[in-house]
Amino acid sequence: MDIGFIGLGRMGAGMAANLAKAGHRVLAYNRTPEKARALAGHGVQPAASVADACRGQAVFTMLADDAAAESLVLGVGGVAASLRRGALHVSSSTISPALAKRMAAAHAEAGQLFASAPVLGRPDAAAAAKLFVLAAGEAEAVAAARPLLDAVGQKTFVISGPPEAANLVKLSGNFLIAATIEALGEALALVEKGGVDKRQYLDFLTSTLFNAPIYKTYGAALVDGAFEPPGFAALLGAKDIRLTLAAAEDLRAPLPIASLLRDRFLSLLAHGGDQLDWSAVGSLAAKDAGLG
Amino acid sequence: MDIGFIGLGRMGAGMAANLAKAGHRVLAYNRTPEKARALAGHGVQPAASVADACRGQAVFTMLADDAAAESLVLGVGGVAASLRRGALHVSSSTISPALAKRMAAAHAEAGQLFASAPVLGRPDAAAAAKLFVLAAGEAEAVAAARPLLDAVGQKTFVISGPPEAANLVKLSGNFLIAATIEALGEALALVEKGGVDKRQYLDFLTSTLFNAPIYKTYGAALVDGAFEPPGFAALLGAKDIRLTLAAAEDLRAPLPIASLLRDRFLSLLAHGGDQLDWSAVGSLAAKDAGLG
Amino acid sequence: MDIGFIGLGRMGAGMAANLAKAGHRVLAYNRTPEKARALAGHGVQPAASVADACRGQAVFTMLADDAAAESLVLGVGGVAASLRRGALHVSSSTISPALAKRMAAAHAEAGQLFASAPVLGRPDAAAAAKLFVLAAGEAEAVAAARPLLDAVGQKTFVISGPPEAANLVKLSGNFLIAATIEALGEALALVEKGGVDKRQYLDFLTSTLFNAPIYKTYGAALVDGAFEPPGFAALLGAKDIRLTLAAAEDLRAPLPIASLLRDRFLSLLAHGGDQLDWSAVGSLAAKDAGLG
Amino acid sequence: MDIGFIGLGRMGAGMAANLAKAGHRVLAYNRTPEKARALAGHGVQPAASVADACRGQAVFTMLADDAAAESLVLGVGGVAASLRRGALHVSSSTISPALAKRMAAAHAEAGQLFASAPVLGRPDAAAAAKLFVLAAGEAEAVAAARPLLDAVGQKTFVISGPPEAANLVKLSGNFLIAATIEALGEALALVEKGGVDKRQYLDFLTSTLFNAPIYKTYGAALVDGAFEPPGFAALLGAKDIRLTLAAAEDLRAPLPIASLLRDRFLSLLAHGGDQLDWSAVGSLAAKDAGLG
Repeated sequence: MDIGFIGLGRMGAGMAANLAKAGHRVLAYNRTPEKARALAGHGVQPAASVADACRGQAVFTMLADDAAAESLVLGVGGVAASLRRGALHVSSSTISPALAKRMAAAHAEAGQLFASAPVLGRPDAAAAAKLFVLAAGEAEAVAAARPLLDAVGQKTFVISGPPEAANLVKLSGNFLIAATIEALGEALALVEKGGVDKRQYLDFLTSTLFNAPIYKTYGAALVDGAFEPPGFAALLGAKDIRLTLAAAEDLRAPLPIASLLRDRFLSLLAHGGDQLDWSAVGSLAAKDAGLG
Repeated sequence: MDIGFIGLGRMGAGMAANLAKAGHRVLAYNRTPEKARALAGHGVQPAASVADACRGQAVFTMLADDAAAESLVLGVGGVAASLRRGALHVSSSTISPALAKRMAAAHAEAGQLFASAPVLGRPDAAAAAKLFVLAAGEAEAVAAARPLLDAVGQKTFVISGPPEAANLVKLSGNFLIAATIEALGEALALVEKGGVDKRQYLDFLTSTLFNAPIYKTYGAALVDGAFEPPGFAALLGAKDIRLTLAAAEDLRAPLPIASLLRDRFLSLLAHGGDQLDWSAVGSLAAKDAGLG
Repeated sequence: MDIGFIGLGRMGAGMAANLAKAGHRVLAYNRTPEKARALAGHGVQPAASVADACRGQAVFTMLADDAAAESLVLGVGGVAASLRRGALHVSSSTISPALAKRMAAAHAEAGQLFASAPVLGRPDAAAAAKLFVLAAGEAEAVAAARPLLDAVGQKTFVISGPPEAANLVKLSGNFLIAATIEALGEALALVEKGGVDKRQYLDFLTSTLFNAPIYKTYGAALVDGAFEPPGFAALLGAKDIRLTLAAAEDLRAPLPIASLLRDRFLSLLAHGGDQLDWSAVGSLAAKDAGLG
Repeated sequence: MDIGFIGLGRMGAGMAANLAKAGHRVLAYNRTPEKARALAGHGVQPAASVADACRGQAVFTMLADDAAAESLVLGVGGVAASLRRGALHVSSSTISPALAKRMAAAHAEAGQLFASAPVLGRPDAAAAAKLFVLAAGEAEAVAAARPLLDAVGQKTFVISGPPEAANLVKLSGNFLIAATIEALGEALALVEKGGVDKRQYLDFLTSTLFNAPIYKTYGAALVDGAFEPPGFAALLGAKDIRLTLAAAEDLRAPLPIASLLRDRFLSLLAHGGDQLDWSAVGSLAAKDAGLG
């Protein structure tokens, strides 16, 4: 199939290469064209423009944030304006549900198919086609996207509801991780003040009830105070909590832990923590307790 | 070894039987003597009084709450007054760190050994000697308790710090579970309002990042609204959060999620939820969002 | 002076009339022209368009929200595009600091003066020229605006800092009122559950430490459960808390009580409370406590 | 009337002197007898013991905390054991509702009258008989106490409900003050980050909607960062919030702002703030925002 791919950051590059590896002709566009040329060896051809990348039956977008996605999808000369009638847009960026909804409306008006398909995983998972993929949209769009999504991930979860439901689920996952970080941070501050060795404590937790990777990964970061270099920067974590709260506000769903996390992230950023790993929010409970 | 055992509820009965099975002579005391007699077939002999159960080299206590433990350990004719010099008291009740500290002081003054050894696990784990055991105290006391603890559990975690540190760690574990319930409840309310099927959502979570038993168990209870009969009653969950906050107050450690949980439990109890499973606190986010 | 006035709602109508009463020639524009004609008897002349209202030395805007203000000030044919070089724009709408900042930039670029001057008070205070007025901006702009502001209010408070500081102060005032409502709601729920008569309690509070009008006004609403008709609708209160939190986010200032209020308002709206008076958020504490 | 007075701290001394001034024979007891002797010039006679102070028709207690009040009222040789049948105990200490309830039960069993009558005001108000007095209890007890209370305060508020309702109302008042401090602290942090001068801001607030003494007093402390010497120490403020939350827990009333205040006070104490004025809790919002 002829597939366009817009956005060749660390995630997008791996995804585009995997689509090519699955046998598709991939035309890739990036604002800085070097990144597209770097993929030539992986069977990916550079596209001259967004419109150029939209010539085929499908196009993926994998962009950094709402501003970039809005501009390249809904702006002048963007995907919605360029894609042919009946062709498919797969949006894999982590964007707000509100923007996904507006994309869905624009594509519906233009007679195009739209699948909202954010992904979970780090760049290494993207390169190895080991992402988890969420997918929501009209049945026809999701069906058309399905084989492409299976080519970039290890498992695709089809989410009922409108297209933006997939974005909401993605955000809720990051919220749950951040909530775990905060709860762990509070528990660690408590037991440390009670004289317990933190490593011993984490070993106990992760050997018994909390034997999931997130407790091990973030627990170790908190115990060691190892927040640099960031796996996921606090500034981006703060953005995802903001998007979660904005979506919750539109849906009229109070989320007290998310509100707490918002305040925690703001405090972290106010103290210069933009480029720390987002798990650093879990260190604020210790600070409030007079530790460290 | 001659071992006394005080408190034959659903947890204590299994623990006492496993001590007998390991070859010890167990003298068991319970306020209502029928429970001690029921264990006769398991090699456990009934004791006539607390003092009677304190005749051997060691005595366990497994009591319902601070009031019972304070009365039977520190009260007139209690364990501290009855145990011989050099003998060992193993306290496995889920009690406040403050009470464990007072027990430690009383035993030190009386020249007795004291190990604080709360356990994690349900009655079936107690019966199968599959508990996780925490242990803290003077090295001599923990060493003496160790083979006995290994007889009632699958693994013993020795916790550095004073005896009450083990109780603090136990409480912190329940706090972390309750925090997970609340966070899940918020995430479920959010995605349900966004049109997502809750079972589908839980399947996604537990297939990806949140593949730990607690997410599966409590997530299913929340999705199904299945809070009866209680595995662990809300009234007891509320008590553990209260003990956690009291310990945190003594240590001057602010715990905002624990504060939120306290308010959630109070709201649940104010609406008649004492005997619901404690996971019902996770349903309040949906209620606040106008669902159900 | 020739003054334009854009936005003749209940607040703007009174302000425009008072400017006319002070001897100015007022050209007033409203989307629905009837409102401008209704003011003819008060010395106010209808303007045909925004541009028409911008012909004089100064123009006021008093619009409902950010969307309206952005469109009529920064949009095509708006105030910034229409006002002559050196003329003054006084923005009295309750808008976000972020929008005020953008207005300031646009006016600076166009060589116009800009004073941000939100007001406090109800429509009856606007009609009686009894408003409290905040004013911020370049010294020249504030000086030019000052006599006009004194004509619409009883007192003008000049706020140091950039123009948007006045909007921030306005929002913070509404935040403080909402915080008072919530605190009162919690205190009332507590004492009511303790068997105290709520009216007696409010009489005690407002006779001793809390003898300010806001405690009397909102306390009475809470005691009586009298939330209709709204003096200030919950939907607008929720909007102001949202604007406060957005400004706080830009400034990296965590505001835990504002976060709580946000969740309270969402819960109220989720239960159909859009058109209740905003003091109804104070009734949620009683609901959580199982009352009413 | 022959009246005993137990507890001659800065508050009690003024109250005892005013009872004497009103024509009563006052027998005063204090743990350190110098304080009783110091009042001799004010018509107050020293009592040799608690029992000695309980010989008349009425006895006041004005003690520092629950521990002191429990010991001297309910302990061996205490007020309940010493007072004659039909005589009156007026408890003016700021104690927990739970303890007041136990006092009421003890006095009822002993056939004595009991009025719970906590007071509001500083030592200078106590000296000048300008206290505000709360009173609750059986009608007969309140009627008997009324003229005595009128002698120590400027106004007496009779509170319906059980005796401990007066203590609950007292605590709720301190909660409302602390909530105001926190809200002001958040607002000040917000506007300061927005470039507004704090003194100018406070002048605006207290000239318009918030013209009550508490805003002026605590606002000035926050603006100046003047927390020493303490008017009311943070350690005592923390205690009152703890008592408020304990009472709310017994009544099953969630109080989210009180929960927040609890965490704020713990953070303040964890950083060595025990002897700062309790308004220092309002400075934590600025700290979290990276100020100061």
